Amino acid sequence: MDVLVPFDAREPKTRLFPVLDTDERREFARVMLADVCAAIAATDREPTVLSTTDVDTNWPVVVDDRPLSDAVNGAIADSDRAVAVVMADLALATPESLERVFAADGEVVLVPGRGGGTNAVLTRRSDFRVDYHGVSIRDHRKQAAAIGVEPTTVDSFRLATDVDEPPDLAEVLLHSDRAAATWLREHDITPAVSEGRVTIDRGT
Amino acid sequence: MDVLVPFDAREPKTRLFPVLDTDERREFARVMLADVCAAIAATDREPTVLSTTDVDTNWPVVVDDRPLSDAVNGAIADSDRAVAVVMADLALATPESLERVFAADGEVVLVPGRGGGTNAVLTRRSDFRVDYHGVSIRDHRKQAAAIGVEPTTVDSFRLATDVDEPPDLAEVLLHSDRAAATWLREHDITPAVSEGRVTIDRGT
Repeated sequence: MDVLVPFDAREPKTRLFPVLDTDERREFARVMLADVCAAIAATDREPTVLSTTDVDTNWPVVVDDRPLSDAVNGAIADSDRAVAVVMADLALATPESLERVFAADGEVVLVPGRGGGTNAVLTRRSDFRVDYHGVSIRDHRKQAAAIGVEPTTVDSFRLATDVDEPPDLAEVLLHSDRAAATWLREHDITPAVSEGRVTIDRGT
Repeated sequence: MDVLVPFDAREPKTRLFPVLDTDERREFARVMLADVCAAIAATDREPTVLSTTDVDTNWPVVVDDRPLSDAVNGAIADSDRAVAVVMADLALATPESLERVFAADGEVVLVPGRGGGTNAVLTRRSDFRVDYHGVSIRDHRKQAAAIGVEPTTVDSFRLATDVDEPPDLAEVLLHSDRAAATWLREHDITPAVSEGRVTIDRGT
């Protein structure tokens, strides 16, 4: 099985702007990427980072500067093996949650993300195509149906939680014991409660 | 096993205000409650609605007007069986996701909700106590540790998704095929994409 981790090395995680500055966002994105790759490796599979530009990491990197969906579809079409695609900002991913995906039955396995996204895909069909634009989970179900496949769904809070906006950092602090959580603590970011919702505080 | 579904019948779901008016919020909350109870019943367990005031439902109701945590703790202390507590706004709950909770090993089983919440609990210890105020998942871990228990965690996107705010309605539309999703469609509420995030539209 090929396990791809798409990564946009150029200007990652812009929606974390209110809390993290440009350099911090770049650094934190790489810490999350490393956590995801390490969790994949702990399932005895080797991650390949599919990056828009070269990126310094301990894992194999394939550079493809096409838009995300095109780069992933190229990799699926070119591979003669099953292909899994795991998003690089799944800071809550654990080997156990990822193993549920890799071990799932079915020709196409989908892991919904919050807000209509698709945070992981496993396809054993080389004619499956991804489209990450818009409400991708809906499009991926249609795409599976179009090739005659009833997709398998993996129901995981950890994998549904991509880290895009400041409140997502609280999820990392509450549910991860990996490097991304340590990085946030070292940058004085802590969970806070405001009007019954969890958000974050940043110390000075 | 006792399966309790706490329900605040007085002024439910105020944060859905921008989309649903008072009567609609009340009605939608009851539709979600019915979906959750039906999903529990489909696991061959009988739900009991633990309600702040009497509520018209097909399921047994126990009225307790104390605050949520006090009412649940009273029920745990008074029962001589395992007690499960499932939130009434888990509109994405399915029999399969709930069965993972009810069948989980361990003296205390916790299901994290988004934003630090605890969306379901199963306790086989009558000395476990809940506290839903603030970052409850953290408090529940501490509470389990205080009685010498390492809690089991069930990792479920469906059960992590409580329906509190307008974007949560999109999750219902995308991932439920039950009455709550039908109700939303009948009220012309549809998913919409705005700046790459899923939100909802309401027809006129």
